Amino acid sequence: MSVTGPKGFTAAGLACGIKASGNPDLALVATDDGRAVPAAGVFTSNLAPAASVQRNRSHLAATGGRAAAVVLTSGNANAATGAPGLAAVDLISELAAAGLGATPEEILVCQTGLIGIPLPTAPLESGLPLLLAARLGGREAALAAATAIMTTDTVRKEALVEAAGFTVGAMAKGAAMLAPNMATMLAVLTTDALADPATLASALQASVDGSFNTMSVDGCTSTNDTVLVLASGRSGTSPTPAELAEALGTACSALSTQMVEDAEGATKVSHVHVVGAASDADAHRAARKVADSLLVKCSLNGEDPYWGRVVSELGSAGVAFDPDLVEISYGGTVVCRAGVAAPHDVAVVAAHMAGRTIELTCDLRLGSGRGAVTGTDLGHGYIDENRTTS
Amino acid sequence: MSVTGPKGFTAAGLACGIKASGNPDLALVATDDGRAVPAAGVFTSNLAPAASVQRNRSHLAATGGRAAAVVLTSGNANAATGAPGLAAVDLISELAAAGLGATPEEILVCQTGLIGIPLPTAPLESGLPLLLAARLGGREAALAAATAIMTTDTVRKEALVEAAGFTVGAMAKGAAMLAPNMATMLAVLTTDALADPATLASALQASVDGSFNTMSVDGCTSTNDTVLVLASGRSGTSPTPAELAEALGTACSALSTQMVEDAEGATKVSHVHVVGAASDADAHRAARKVADSLLVKCSLNGEDPYWGRVVSELGSAGVAFDPDLVEISYGGTVVCRAGVAAPHDVAVVAAHMAGRTIELTCDLRLGSGRGAVTGTDLGHGYIDENRTTS
Repeated sequence: MSVTGPKGFTAAGLACGIKASGNPDLALVATDDGRAVPAAGVFTSNLAPAASVQRNRSHLAATGGRAAAVVLTSGNANAATGAPGLAAVDLISELAAAGLGATPEEILVCQTGLIGIPLPTAPLESGLPLLLAARLGGREAALAAATAIMTTDTVRKEALVEAAGFTVGAMAKGAAMLAPNMATMLAVLTTDALADPATLASALQASVDGSFNTMSVDGCTSTNDTVLVLASGRSGTSPTPAELAEALGTACSALSTQMVEDAEGATKVSHVHVVGAASDADAHRAARKVADSLLVKCSLNGEDPYWGRVVSELGSAGVAFDPDLVEISYGGTVVCRAGVAAPHDVAVVAAHMAGRTIELTCDLRLGSGRGAVTGTDLGHGYIDENRTTS
Repeated sequence: MSVTGPKGFTAAGLACGIKASGNPDLALVATDDGRAVPAAGVFTSNLAPAASVQRNRSHLAATGGRAAAVVLTSGNANAATGAPGLAAVDLISELAAAGLGATPEEILVCQTGLIGIPLPTAPLESGLPLLLAARLGGREAALAAATAIMTTDTVRKEALVEAAGFTVGAMAKGAAMLAPNMATMLAVLTTDALADPATLASALQASVDGSFNTMSVDGCTSTNDTVLVLASGRSGTSPTPAELAEALGTACSALSTQMVEDAEGATKVSHVHVVGAASDADAHRAARKVADSLLVKCSLNGEDPYWGRVVSELGSAGVAFDPDLVEISYGGTVVCRAGVAAPHDVAVVAAHMAGRTIELTCDLRLGSGRGAVTGTDLGHGYIDENRTTS
């Protein structure tokens, strides 16, 4: 059911003509009565944010954290498009607000696709009334919405979490963490929990930090990355902040796992664990350095347990590090101990490297800091997907 | 002539058996009388430095910046090799010192190859006496040395700079800046200028900052990166610090250009210029972010002038940035002005993108800060070269 799973939400998806292919490119998630409910968002840190990101920030500020609907488009990022780009987002908000009986500030917008290309408004003017008319609860409507936000995605990404007395539904598109590649990461969560905007915002931030922000495909930070949550309150259940954060986090983790599994051109998923660091921050930074390393990613593609490159990345990660202490293992088999090669069963490691998921653990033996980043390998497919936009 | 061009230097190169292929893997640059002369080095910032880097630092400190010779090996990085690795470097120093009539501290060592594999000492014990016996002045000896340090290099890298009254010679191996890939960047410069160790050290650091440190292939920082200079004084000329730095810089720039032209698997060289930044530091940081971006590198591989990705990288570079001001051009043709698409002659840009060298200029229009980084594209070749060590 994903976004229509929690009580009080409808969804829709259709093709309006933004994509030249004619594939679905316009989606909606809205409250079933068109009224605004508590909402929160986490947005890209990019200093060149897309028009939709700029407007979402100001809309949430203007409403004090409330929204009636999210409109999503795919095929054009509407970033680096100047004043016409902002006007296009305003057009979406106005059309959706009029159809739902809400105010334009109660409409949030997510967009994904190519940067720097003017967004045509005719498809929006014709498509939005149809989209609003098509909104429904139930599985089909959620599927249509999740389909209409796909770009380079090869599968839909959805999640549904049944918590104690309330439900969280979610859909997403993208191939990475909240610092992903050109295809952008977008996610919309719905819940029927009772929660005020401030509680919702802090729970969402914690969920994003523990899920999307621990993944890395290429270390690039999109202009459009957005995660939104709307809370209808229809379950009548008021979870504690911790319960709410846990449920949102479970949904975000499910989506982020689906994203990395579907990462552009990847053949491997890597779980890079750093333990024994001087601090958790050090551990996370070191894990990201290893996961983002082109050389390590090439090794994973070649199923080569070349731990020397891992040592080199740890040594240049900008964290406390003693090369004479470090221990490295693949799939639990230690291949480097006290900074030098450790005797090990080569066949066991080779079998682990041949799998789809590779567990790489680095014990710095300096303290109790822990962190993990999920990444991918680097293969021909990534290049082929990203070398041209045509 | 490269390293034997300046008066007072000899060189040699041969195969001693480190490389299984039987290719040359042992090289020497030494003063012709075996006496120590002023010397300086710039080393990797990696916190897991190779044994040779550790010893070079302590040797230069012990001698107050003097050296009689540099011994270079290829095929094994002797990094992450613990105490036996340090002992292997000491063995090299002792054998070379005995042969030259110098002290072990007057011998510097550079090594390149795979990390984490014990360095066999038998090839060194048999090879070093032959190497010392083979040392000569002249072109052939310099060629032999430059050949013996190659790993994944497809061409030798040499430079010779005739300055006012003195000469600088140089050889290098590697495919990147002083933050290069697994193949490591090594460079040895010789000069017959008269210079004290402190002047030599500051001139070398400035030269490296302006050459090797403005290049990027994959953003990885090797455990072994080393640049060394020895000054025989035999020309009798005492250049000013600026003259010395300029001559060393010219040699380093020539080598770094050769490196990026020979970068592993690259089909394009990119010159990323950032102007109009709030500071030179901002400009350099932004240029590196663009040059290192996987998505930008894929676009270069595909000859796609996708400036939207460049805006996105500038916006996430951690520098002052206003997306409404930025101007971007390829080969001098402006494709983005005031943050949005600018009308331009598509054929002219396409012709520029089809060339081997791509000029990408980003004007932030915020100040007078300038910086440039030379990079490469990302193609299948890089992955193929780095996916396995076998």
